[in-house]
Amino acid sequence: MKAARLHGYDQDLKGDDFLRLEDVPEPSIEEPGEVLVRVGGAGLCRTDLHIIQGLWDDALVVDPPYILGHENAGWVQEVGSAVRHVRRGDAVLVLPGLSDGVCPACRRGTDNLCESLVWIGIQRDGGFADLLKARERNMIPLPEGMEPNAVAPYVDAGLTAYHAAKRAARLVEPNGTVVVIGVGGLGHVGIQALRALSPVRILAVEISETARGLAKDLGVDEVIDGSQSPVERVQELTRGAGADAVLDFVAEGDVPGQAMAMLRAGGAYLVVGYGGRLDIPTMEFLTEKQVIGNVGGTSAEMVELLGLAEQGKVRLETTQYPLERINEAIGDLRDLQIRGRAVIVP
Amino acid sequence: MKAARLHGYDQDLKGDDFLRLEDVPEPSIEEPGEVLVRVGGAGLCRTDLHIIQGLWDDALVVDPPYILGHENAGWVQEVGSAVRHVRRGDAVLVLPGLSDGVCPACRRGTDNLCESLVWIGIQRDGGFADLLKARERNMIPLPEGMEPNAVAPYVDAGLTAYHAAKRAARLVEPNGTVVVIGVGGLGHVGIQALRALSPVRILAVEISETARGLAKDLGVDEVIDGSQSPVERVQELTRGAGADAVLDFVAEGDVPGQAMAMLRAGGAYLVVGYGGRLDIPTMEFLTEKQVIGNVGGTSAEMVELLGLAEQGKVRLETTQYPLERINEAIGDLRDLQIRGRAVIVP
Amino acid sequence: MKAARLHGYDQDLKGDDFLRLEDVPEPSIEEPGEVLVRVGGAGLCRTDLHIIQGLWDDALVVDPPYILGHENAGWVQEVGSAVRHVRRGDAVLVLPGLSDGVCPACRRGTDNLCESLVWIGIQRDGGFADLLKARERNMIPLPEGMEPNAVAPYVDAGLTAYHAAKRAARLVEPNGTVVVIGVGGLGHVGIQALRALSPVRILAVEISETARGLAKDLGVDEVIDGSQSPVERVQELTRGAGADAVLDFVAEGDVPGQAMAMLRAGGAYLVVGYGGRLDIPTMEFLTEKQVIGNVGGTSAEMVELLGLAEQGKVRLETTQYPLERINEAIGDLRDLQIRGRAVIVP
Amino acid sequence: MKAARLHGYDQDLKGDDFLRLEDVPEPSIEEPGEVLVRVGGAGLCRTDLHIIQGLWDDALVVDPPYILGHENAGWVQEVGSAVRHVRRGDAVLVLPGLSDGVCPACRRGTDNLCESLVWIGIQRDGGFADLLKARERNMIPLPEGMEPNAVAPYVDAGLTAYHAAKRAARLVEPNGTVVVIGVGGLGHVGIQALRALSPVRILAVEISETARGLAKDLGVDEVIDGSQSPVERVQELTRGAGADAVLDFVAEGDVPGQAMAMLRAGGAYLVVGYGGRLDIPTMEFLTEKQVIGNVGGTSAEMVELLGLAEQGKVRLETTQYPLERINEAIGDLRDLQIRGRAVIVP
Repeated sequence: MKAARLHGYDQDLKGDDFLRLEDVPEPSIEEPGEVLVRVGGAGLCRTDLHIIQGLWDDALVVDPPYILGHENAGWVQEVGSAVRHVRRGDAVLVLPGLSDGVCPACRRGTDNLCESLVWIGIQRDGGFADLLKARERNMIPLPEGMEPNAVAPYVDAGLTAYHAAKRAARLVEPNGTVVVIGVGGLGHVGIQALRALSPVRILAVEISETARGLAKDLGVDEVIDGSQSPVERVQELTRGAGADAVLDFVAEGDVPGQAMAMLRAGGAYLVVGYGGRLDIPTMEFLTEKQVIGNVGGTSAEMVELLGLAEQGKVRLETTQYPLERINEAIGDLRDLQIRGRAVIVP
Repeated sequence: MKAARLHGYDQDLKGDDFLRLEDVPEPSIEEPGEVLVRVGGAGLCRTDLHIIQGLWDDALVVDPPYILGHENAGWVQEVGSAVRHVRRGDAVLVLPGLSDGVCPACRRGTDNLCESLVWIGIQRDGGFADLLKARERNMIPLPEGMEPNAVAPYVDAGLTAYHAAKRAARLVEPNGTVVVIGVGGLGHVGIQALRALSPVRILAVEISETARGLAKDLGVDEVIDGSQSPVERVQELTRGAGADAVLDFVAEGDVPGQAMAMLRAGGAYLVVGYGGRLDIPTMEFLTEKQVIGNVGGTSAEMVELLGLAEQGKVRLETTQYPLERINEAIGDLRDLQIRGRAVIVP
Repeated sequence: MKAARLHGYDQDLKGDDFLRLEDVPEPSIEEPGEVLVRVGGAGLCRTDLHIIQGLWDDALVVDPPYILGHENAGWVQEVGSAVRHVRRGDAVLVLPGLSDGVCPACRRGTDNLCESLVWIGIQRDGGFADLLKARERNMIPLPEGMEPNAVAPYVDAGLTAYHAAKRAARLVEPNGTVVVIGVGGLGHVGIQALRALSPVRILAVEISETARGLAKDLGVDEVIDGSQSPVERVQELTRGAGADAVLDFVAEGDVPGQAMAMLRAGGAYLVVGYGGRLDIPTMEFLTEKQVIGNVGGTSAEMVELLGLAEQGKVRLETTQYPLERINEAIGDLRDLQIRGRAVIVP
Repeated sequence: MKAARLHGYDQDLKGDDFLRLEDVPEPSIEEPGEVLVRVGGAGLCRTDLHIIQGLWDDALVVDPPYILGHENAGWVQEVGSAVRHVRRGDAVLVLPGLSDGVCPACRRGTDNLCESLVWIGIQRDGGFADLLKARERNMIPLPEGMEPNAVAPYVDAGLTAYHAAKRAARLVEPNGTVVVIGVGGLGHVGIQALRALSPVRILAVEISETARGLAKDLGVDEVIDGSQSPVERVQELTRGAGADAVLDFVAEGDVPGQAMAMLRAGGAYLVVGYGGRLDIPTMEFLTEKQVIGNVGGTSAEMVELLGLAEQGKVRLETTQYPLERINEAIGDLRDLQIRGRAVIVP
């Protein structure tokens, strides 16, 4: 089959030949819980850039060459003998994490924290190819009428944003205020999810003018320019009380400090982005503020998010590239030239 | 191998030959997620009596002959190729329900509500035998020093009681009052679990004098004779306010009505037993009382309960019978002649 | 001042002179926590009919004559010396329950369960008059632009519906299904509140064709004729799984049994209406169904509901009557001739 | 009456005449919700030292002279006309915060976050005197047999520790592990409360040998020397998984960083102490760790803690000083010469 494989790292992303398109043997069912999926679409993610740069080298257990692509959707091609819940022809999203289903975290329903999680497209062959192998636990059936290539990015970017937005919605009373920092790939799903889940007032903070425009289109209550004293603006809009929660998809530079300063007593800072530092006096916690980390989402939440998408309450903008042009897509992503999320279609 | 199989029903339990001891072929691994367990002990349960009587006939999908025994513990004998978390020689409890791990209920961590649950020892061969086949998801490793034959009943009677007691502990504030109705096989574990989980005041209601003695030994705060106006007694002991929760292991006859009448405004009636009716005016719910159903427990809770047992905070009284004498054990259970829980040892 | 007072009961509501319009002395501040309110509007409620009929006689501590009217809103006229949070001229809703603020229930934030609750308009003079006396705890400031006579019914009918709808929204996952039974005065607020609080699918069950039309206008996902096998219809619409919650504003006749039969395993039956009986085998609770009683709402929830109203997410239909025509309003209510909620305006 | 008043600050605590014992007029009831309490005992707290040093100058709204003492208990001497829940002669704890009971935080049951909180003994006259004035909301009746002078410190030090311990108990499953850092005045109550509320394993970290001895006496599962690589020790004792929660009564120096490093994925760091900084990469939150601030406790929790004390599940060590020797007590506190908590007795 056709596949785009990583053969070596390119630290500065200067090349134009990041992945090599080649013919590789098709994967086959080896265990009865496995499922082969004919790929309908595979989202291209900034994490793919980081992998190509070699930044994730230490975390990886497989050496190149291997197939990237962790945001996958398609149609079931073949199932192992123990598979009960999907069958050939079903349209499915493929969760990127192979969770074991039997560790304490999985048994508690928090499979995003599975103790032995292995990532498809990062730690083993992914979906920039005709076929992809995963397990039954990874299969999330698509509602009727949803095309795999239109929804593949929900499985990682979408789910991560939904997971955090849902926690914010549970923590904040219906007449509260939530600040969303960063209206990019995750943030724009986060805003839509939060809007669907709760009637809270939403304030969006963004430094990019284009993204502020997107926030406005999504109907947030106020859009704040992140480069113009956002803390003061939030305090003003909440009459000095501060926000009940901050949902931070950036978490770099000054943002963590600003996020804490925007909160009211008892408020929650939900960290989704990463890259910066949080540096505050412990005295600040005397107001019962909380900082809550987030990673991915659970498989049950994946089904919930698809439900919102089916109702049209969450929408995803995508730009499709055929698998043959994947290196062009990677270059465009590096150059910030892609509108919405890039999806590679075999 | 040796096994005790059911060949036909005995509606009145008049016989003395309920199960037939015979040589049957050993089970073998057919799927890679399966595990063979050498049985160390298998609890005998009132449900086994009901099955022998034919009362559960409609709910069963297998026709006799088959092996009963759903409260099993032992040592791993052989594992399928996909099994990762246990290996030969491990001492394990075997959860009676084969849950699929991929339905919404399992994904949410509530595998006691699995949509395709199949019961070992009820709907397929169980543990009144030398060997038992189950799946990896059913294996709960035993802490060091715990003997399978001493702890097998935790897996059903124990877990059910723990599950309900934990919900009561979460619902009631630490200075609240919980009434436990019925201090039998489940109730005595329920009391110990509740005592371990919360400092609430515990009032035990029992009609049997012997069981009231057991309640006293377990250190409940007050023991109430269930045949002597228990509602009035509870109201008296709570100065007319009523209890914050009632944990009902009986749920027959007058008990459901009494349980509701014992509750304070906003209180919770946790139903565990079954067999009677709840018949009340909907107006009674104007005080925000709740009725909460319970069935079994989750696999995560099974691990928690073992933790309490390991610390000595929950103890189980058992009487052991060799497999050869299983029909004697069944007769003794019918005749209420067993102290604690009967465990069949191959 | 003018007031409409109850002087005697009329069991069959056959008269046309239910309350007597008369001049009575104005109330005055006697304690520093008290507040006098100039009434802007007072909702007329079915409970008022029941009081006039003498059905609540036992529950009342004051003998006639006294002023009815428990759903009040207006403007602060005078405040006692200890009042800090409202001042003369403020537009306010007046919570009907005088809660003490210091009992355990109030301290926990559940002032709808206050241990010494006294009802304005039921147990002491209410708002069918020019002036009304209450306490600071009862004052809920109105957002700008909200007219007291347009929103008075939120304080009882609205709050009760909101309270139950919020609990349903917290209990059910975003992709779940909630059945609302009864689309009357409470039900139509409950549907709007639920729609605002959660993206769950809403199925409305109603026997009245007019009310089914209202349900459609409110945008519920499916409207079911309550006289046409509603249980079967719900099972059909949920592919045999049943609903995650039932929000029952009727709770009479066959409805409680139907509500239980509509639920999926683990589902919650939220009882708001009253008048009928719940009569079911305790075995039904083996599926972990729950029955949850509801009464009124908390003062914090009142503020939340006003926030939804301010955003236009919840609307209330009212018909206004001048105080002089209150007996006509009562007759119209008896004869089911009022569109929306009647509000009496002094 | 006799009272010990602050007249001026002593930055270095070098003097021996910190407060001036003098005769002052007795306070009197001015509002009907007020209560006069004859002081039975008033805890001496490190915060009193900070006030004497002038460190809290900015936060105070009253200028000296005024009476210190915020941990008070005694007997009701006189009540205002609106007081319903206590009467002359009742033994009571006096909550230090005058909460308003009507702000959103109070209405939600979180009166520790009251928006207009005023502190007795800090922002107005306190309990180092014969009599003390507070409001009905501050009165927490003592269970029979509890002497005010033996329990006064529960109202601040005890409640703060209980509040945080209760949150830990709710966050951590019964078979989890909680690390308690700091076994001083708050920590030793925190350990006892946690032990009473949950069967979790408790690891105590302390740098003082004496306090480690106290931890052992309180029955914690493991005592760790805080100066000997406590992170490594916790990892070792949890087989590399980390703790489910850390309850930090120190929060200075290296401790915040250590606390975060001790946590497992999804674990919670409960900050109670203050004085240091938390400085960590936001990437650390990719494991879903949480940091949760704490301040004081709610009035409902005060009642719960007294319930535990009444059962003997929490004990408090105190050293009593007559009011005349208050300056000696302050010197002893400065010099770390007091065993347990100092209580000043008029």
